Amino acid sequence: MNKTVKIGRKILSANEEYAQRNRELLKQKNLPCLNFISSPGSGKTTLLCKTINDVKDKLRIGVIEGDIETDIDAEKIRATAAPVIQINTEGACHLAAAQIARGLNALPLDKLDMVCIENVGNLVCPSAFELGETAKIALLSVPEGDDKPAKYPALFAKAHALLITKADLLELGPQIQFDMEKVIQDVRKINKNIRIFPVSATTGKGMSDWYQWLVEFATAVDR
Amino acid sequence: MNKTVKIGRKILSANEEYAQRNRELLKQKNLPCLNFISSPGSGKTTLLCKTINDVKDKLRIGVIEGDIETDIDAEKIRATAAPVIQINTEGACHLAAAQIARGLNALPLDKLDMVCIENVGNLVCPSAFELGETAKIALLSVPEGDDKPAKYPALFAKAHALLITKADLLELGPQIQFDMEKVIQDVRKINKNIRIFPVSATTGKGMSDWYQWLVEFATAVDR
Repeated sequence: MNKTVKIGRKILSANEEYAQRNRELLKQKNLPCLNFISSPGSGKTTLLCKTINDVKDKLRIGVIEGDIETDIDAEKIRATAAPVIQINTEGACHLAAAQIARGLNALPLDKLDMVCIENVGNLVCPSAFELGETAKIALLSVPEGDDKPAKYPALFAKAHALLITKADLLELGPQIQFDMEKVIQDVRKINKNIRIFPVSATTGKGMSDWYQWLVEFATAVDR
Repeated sequence: MNKTVKIGRKILSANEEYAQRNRELLKQKNLPCLNFISSPGSGKTTLLCKTINDVKDKLRIGVIEGDIETDIDAEKIRATAAPVIQINTEGACHLAAAQIARGLNALPLDKLDMVCIENVGNLVCPSAFELGETAKIALLSVPEGDDKPAKYPALFAKAHALLITKADLLELGPQIQFDMEKVIQDVRKINKNIRIFPVSATTGKGMSDWYQWLVEFATAVDR
C-alpha cells in the first residue's frame, strides 16, 4: 500500500481541469483573456480603468475583479460602464480557475472582445495558478524598487508583457530611486520575449504603445 | 473509519509546533522577536538598516532575512555589521517556523537584545503563519495607496505596530494621493490597540517615535 499523498499535485490538477475548461470556452468564443498580476498597490485597477476608457472604440473589455475582501475595485471598473464581476476570495491569496469559470459564466461574453482578470494583489502566489488565461500581464510600480524582478522572478518569467507603472514618479527627483535599465536587463535575463512598457495611467505617458500592443494582441489570429 | 483528512489543520499544526519551540527559546533567552510583514517594495530592508544603525547603542539587533531568491537584502543588513542569516524560500510565499528555528540556531543569541525577521514580501500569506515571534510589525508604504487596510485586513488586524513608510513622498504634491486619516481610521476599526508611525527611513522623519516604541517594547517586562 502506497501511503504517499501528493497533495500539491492534486490541488494543482483540480485547478488545471477548470483552467482547461476556461481555455476551451474562451477559444470557442474567440476571446483573448489577460490575467493582470502584481503586488498590492502597483496600480492594476487604475491602469485597467484608463485602458478600458481609452480603447473602448476598438475593444469591448469585460473584467473579473479578484479581491480578498471589499468591492472597492469593482466599483471603480463599474464607473467605466464595462461589465464587471467581483470575486472575493475571503482570505485566499490568489484567484483559482473555478472562480474564473463562474466569472466567465456571469459575463456577457458574446458582447465582448476581451476579458481582463485583475488578480489578488500578490507578486508571488497568483503566478502559480493557471486560470485558463491567454496571457499573464505583470505590473511593477516604480516605487516598489528596481530589485523586484531578481527577488521575485516567477511572474516575470511567465508574463507576456510587463507594465512598469507610476513612471511619472521618475520625474520627481532623487527621492525616487529606480534604475529602469537594470529592471529591463534583469527581466530580459529570465524572459527574452517579454514586451516592456513604462507607463503612467495618471499622466497618460507611454500608454499609447501599450494600447497598440493590446489591440494587436486581441486581434491576432495566432495568439 | 473516518476518511476525513484535515490537511490545512495538519500543516498549520506542524508549523505551530516549531513556532512554540521558537517561542520557548526566545523566552528562555529573554529575547523579543519582531516579524516584519508587508508587500514587496514597502521598504522593510531600508527601515531595518536605518533602525539597526540608529539604535545600536541601545539595542543589539540580529536579523533573519526571508527572500524567495537572492541575498540582496542580507547584504544590505550585513553592511550595518548586524548579524544576519539569509533564508531563501525557493518559491514559497512566506517564512515557516522551522526555517526560523534554523535561523535562531545560527544567530549569536546571547549577544543580542532583539531578533528581527524580515518576511517574504507579501501582504497576504505571511500573516497566517506563526513563527513564534513576540509581535508582528506591518509596513504600508504611501505609494501603495490608502485602500490597502480595507482590502487586505488580516495583517493589520494582527500587528502590534504599523509603520506607514515612504512618508516623505507625501510632500511631493498631488501626484501622490494618500489619505493618512482614512488609513488610520480603517486600521483602528479592525485593531484598536495598534500603534501607528508615519515614517521616512530616507529623511528620518518620524523615526524617533518608532525607536522610542521599539526600545520600550524590547525592555518591557510584560511583553
